[in-house]
Amino acid sequence: MAQSAFHGVFPYLVSPIDAAGAVKEDVLSRLCDDLINAGVHGLTPLGSTGEFAYLSWPQRRRIVEVVIAAARGRVPVVAGVAATTIADAVAQAREFEGLGCQGILAILEAYFPLTDDGVFQYFKAIADAVALPVVLYTNPNFQRVDLSLPVIERLSHVANIGYIKDASNNTGRLLSIINQVGVRMKVFAASAHIPATVMLIGGVGWMAGPACVAPRQSVELYDLCRRGDWNKAMERQRPLWALNQDFAKYNLAACIKGALELQGYAVGAPLPPQAPLSAEGIEDVKRTLLAIGAL
Amino acid sequence: MAQSAFHGVFPYLVSPIDAAGAVKEDVLSRLCDDLINAGVHGLTPLGSTGEFAYLSWPQRRRIVEVVIAAARGRVPVVAGVAATTIADAVAQAREFEGLGCQGILAILEAYFPLTDDGVFQYFKAIADAVALPVVLYTNPNFQRVDLSLPVIERLSHVANIGYIKDASNNTGRLLSIINQVGVRMKVFAASAHIPATVMLIGGVGWMAGPACVAPRQSVELYDLCRRGDWNKAMERQRPLWALNQDFAKYNLAACIKGALELQGYAVGAPLPPQAPLSAEGIEDVKRTLLAIGAL
Amino acid sequence: MAQSAFHGVFPYLVSPIDAAGAVKEDVLSRLCDDLINAGVHGLTPLGSTGEFAYLSWPQRRRIVEVVIAAARGRVPVVAGVAATTIADAVAQAREFEGLGCQGILAILEAYFPLTDDGVFQYFKAIADAVALPVVLYTNPNFQRVDLSLPVIERLSHVANIGYIKDASNNTGRLLSIINQVGVRMKVFAASAHIPATVMLIGGVGWMAGPACVAPRQSVELYDLCRRGDWNKAMERQRPLWALNQDFAKYNLAACIKGALELQGYAVGAPLPPQAPLSAEGIEDVKRTLLAIGAL
Amino acid sequence: MAQSAFHGVFPYLVSPIDAAGAVKEDVLSRLCDDLINAGVHGLTPLGSTGEFAYLSWPQRRRIVEVVIAAARGRVPVVAGVAATTIADAVAQAREFEGLGCQGILAILEAYFPLTDDGVFQYFKAIADAVALPVVLYTNPNFQRVDLSLPVIERLSHVANIGYIKDASNNTGRLLSIINQVGVRMKVFAASAHIPATVMLIGGVGWMAGPACVAPRQSVELYDLCRRGDWNKAMERQRPLWALNQDFAKYNLAACIKGALELQGYAVGAPLPPQAPLSAEGIEDVKRTLLAIGAL
Repeated sequence: MAQSAFHGVFPYLVSPIDAAGAVKEDVLSRLCDDLINAGVHGLTPLGSTGEFAYLSWPQRRRIVEVVIAAARGRVPVVAGVAATTIADAVAQAREFEGLGCQGILAILEAYFPLTDDGVFQYFKAIADAVALPVVLYTNPNFQRVDLSLPVIERLSHVANIGYIKDASNNTGRLLSIINQVGVRMKVFAASAHIPATVMLIGGVGWMAGPACVAPRQSVELYDLCRRGDWNKAMERQRPLWALNQDFAKYNLAACIKGALELQGYAVGAPLPPQAPLSAEGIEDVKRTLLAIGAL
Repeated sequence: MAQSAFHGVFPYLVSPIDAAGAVKEDVLSRLCDDLINAGVHGLTPLGSTGEFAYLSWPQRRRIVEVVIAAARGRVPVVAGVAATTIADAVAQAREFEGLGCQGILAILEAYFPLTDDGVFQYFKAIADAVALPVVLYTNPNFQRVDLSLPVIERLSHVANIGYIKDASNNTGRLLSIINQVGVRMKVFAASAHIPATVMLIGGVGWMAGPACVAPRQSVELYDLCRRGDWNKAMERQRPLWALNQDFAKYNLAACIKGALELQGYAVGAPLPPQAPLSAEGIEDVKRTLLAIGAL
Repeated sequence: MAQSAFHGVFPYLVSPIDAAGAVKEDVLSRLCDDLINAGVHGLTPLGSTGEFAYLSWPQRRRIVEVVIAAARGRVPVVAGVAATTIADAVAQAREFEGLGCQGILAILEAYFPLTDDGVFQYFKAIADAVALPVVLYTNPNFQRVDLSLPVIERLSHVANIGYIKDASNNTGRLLSIINQVGVRMKVFAASAHIPATVMLIGGVGWMAGPACVAPRQSVELYDLCRRGDWNKAMERQRPLWALNQDFAKYNLAACIKGALELQGYAVGAPLPPQAPLSAEGIEDVKRTLLAIGAL
Repeated sequence: MAQSAFHGVFPYLVSPIDAAGAVKEDVLSRLCDDLINAGVHGLTPLGSTGEFAYLSWPQRRRIVEVVIAAARGRVPVVAGVAATTIADAVAQAREFEGLGCQGILAILEAYFPLTDDGVFQYFKAIADAVALPVVLYTNPNFQRVDLSLPVIERLSHVANIGYIKDASNNTGRLLSIINQVGVRMKVFAASAHIPATVMLIGGVGWMAGPACVAPRQSVELYDLCRRGDWNKAMERQRPLWALNQDFAKYNLAACIKGALELQGYAVGAPLPPQAPLSAEGIEDVKRTLLAIGAL
């Protein structure tokens, strides 16, 4: 595996679980292998698309093990830690480090509002608990707390917090972050941003569910951006955006799991009471995948 | 224990946890005993005030065991089940039933939005899994899904779903629920409603954190409401409301834990990264407790 | 007209406007007359139901003139002043005072957020501009600014600000206001509160659209509350609540205009692009009016 | 004036009003003249920054007259029409057309929620009332209604609706619009988007307050984008973004009026009860202007 910093396309992996609650290891392994062969630069289990909020700890642990084994060191695995308490987050991060992942995606769940200092302490504790690089995850849509610019500034001075993945749809906010802490913290886009625009303003890649079903196309787009060939990048970006629109329109996990089923991966449906992708959703996604050459 | 239906004052118990993560059983037992001696009609572990969202399953399980043991059958124990998946909720409910509680408070957590049908399936599955009466819990402030009136109507036809506890601050919504399903489902107020007004419109009691620190005063208020002595009830209600205002102003768990510490219960602070009650909050709460004769 | 303080049932009048933009004076006058004969305690032109936000200044002015003329001093007329600037609000208030109304309902419109001090200055300026009693109006649903408790406290010390009408659905907030400033400022409910509960906690009446179409029933409810006959009050309140539910479900002006059309008042539809009450809405409202004996 | 389509930098003009409520014509004229000399491609009076929501109709009318006179046909003037009713909007648009402006910026104000059809009818009526090109304005932050993608699609088929200006901060939404209706409707950015990224995805320019105080820098950025020199464009964009950050942090009108005062334009403060730019805001803005060479 390259020793260089995280960059490029990191698909947010889905979590295939069978009716008895067991991880479908074969399906997940094959998906990881295919994604790596398509050129992705890393793998991210247990992001939003990975339904971290719906999985037990043994399920989460097994998924990370399977992904690390499937990656065979070819690309870095950045595993999602998500908790409401510092104690739980620290325990998860340590265990994932022990399993051999290359980075931690740090997610804060909250039931009650937190002060900025509480938010800082949570992420700081995760970073202190491991020797791995940490990616901050901020998602104002599904979480009850957001990372304010002053908190991001404070966290950027923690040595091994080197990245932030912003899942708002506010691209201007990313430029504000880059302008303020860009020398210490690199920015990954999420699916609600247009990847090409985030690359233009100084981002280093994207971590997102749609890359699971369009890995080759995502990597081509990334390469065009890296070469500064912005006009050609936009030509590729334009049709790819439809996938992100579908992703925003339907339940994230349902959308990507539905798309992967169309591609021949028996990943199943999201965990109940989440609904599987609707018939209308399947038609939308099928149309999009055909249009971008992913089916 | 009375065989009659749930009614009256059910304090939402705090969850005292020591630095090592163990339940402080003595403190919790003494609190339960004192509350029962003060006349409360039931006990509710693992509500919002009980920090269910911050506890591991072993911690939750132990808390319910301790409360059931402390209650010694004198009042019903209605334990909070909270999950994102149906499978997890059903497992929790069955285990609590096995421990010997008298009812289930059913809480739905969600990361992604759900359809009305998904919400229905979640609560239906809990009710089907146990023989106990089930109390629906709805809280639009801290949860990502709310129970719509049509879903409440559907759920009211499930045999053992007999109660709903609404934690919005919209008292009119309670009257809408009572008008529509009042023959099948009884209504408990939460701390954001004025208990006396909910009793006036047909409620049967309240499940709320503040009753932990003012149990005697709460029971007196309840008795006045039951006797239809509304003017005297309002005399009692008026100063008691300050406690609910404090409760809304500060983190719920921090507020009640802070108040109990003032009363001599070593319940500690809420779990990090939640902050303990601030110095200003302690002053506010102390003033309120003194004013209502609870300190 | 009674010299006593404002209290009781103040219907929020609709604003009947013909296709050419002229006030339908006959319809409005007859409605006012009928409402007074049914026993209402005051009239409020240019509230939310009165579509103040959709009317030109000449239309607003004419409506107040017509209502004052129709009232013939039998009940107080409290006219709605609504503006984004202090200058406009002051001009409106002075002109309404000159026309002979008995009170001002002060409404703050905002496009950009305001500081608490800006909010205070706005209402203070209206009060200073007239010798009439002023009713503060606060509506967090449709306005971009809300009156915080500290601002309400400050405003309660302005001599002729004697009332507040709260259009949130948070009844607990009303008790907080009453507890804090009840000696200086009286509280009116709006349609989203259950009138009987607001009377129980110390309110002095309600200003609301539904009273336009159920004036007799509203006055009976008010009288029962005033006599402290709370159980009988709730018997009346229960079926009347359906009207408030319809009111919340549909556009306020469309709902009341639709209901008045059913009762034989040719008030027309709300101003375009607002839609008239839908066929489904007409059925809902008809059912409700029949059930409460208002059709 | 070029007969070609609208494109480039259109500063949102402030509205300088003296203490007596009169338009400060000299100041406004000089500002327009300077902006045109700095190379801007058009002028937009009565946008959000222009405090349309705080001005009387005579004030609005006079401002448009003054701007048209100052422009002397050198650049197109696109005047803001803002109303709650169709009748008012149509009257405003016709009068502005009569005054000689080159386009209409159509803004929908709402107090009650509207159906998609009501939104469509409003904008359609404005377009039908004039022969001028119409720019749709959508701002989910300060308005109560938003233009959904289906409504935008319907409106894109109205012949003289040729542009949309989106004031959300969701840049991805712009690409969705461009992908769906880009052949019929061109997209302008607002201040919450990064202009360079909107140009990259196919936008034709921006209409925004900050261009009032950095016209030369804005035009340079635009020219670099038009030439496809994206890397150099981003070099310029990066420091300019600080101005948009200030603009978002403070009241829009206060920020731009405060900045213009620093540059020697006696435009005064926003209309009360809006507050002038705070001392802290003045320092922030001064620092930004110095950094970009605009002071």
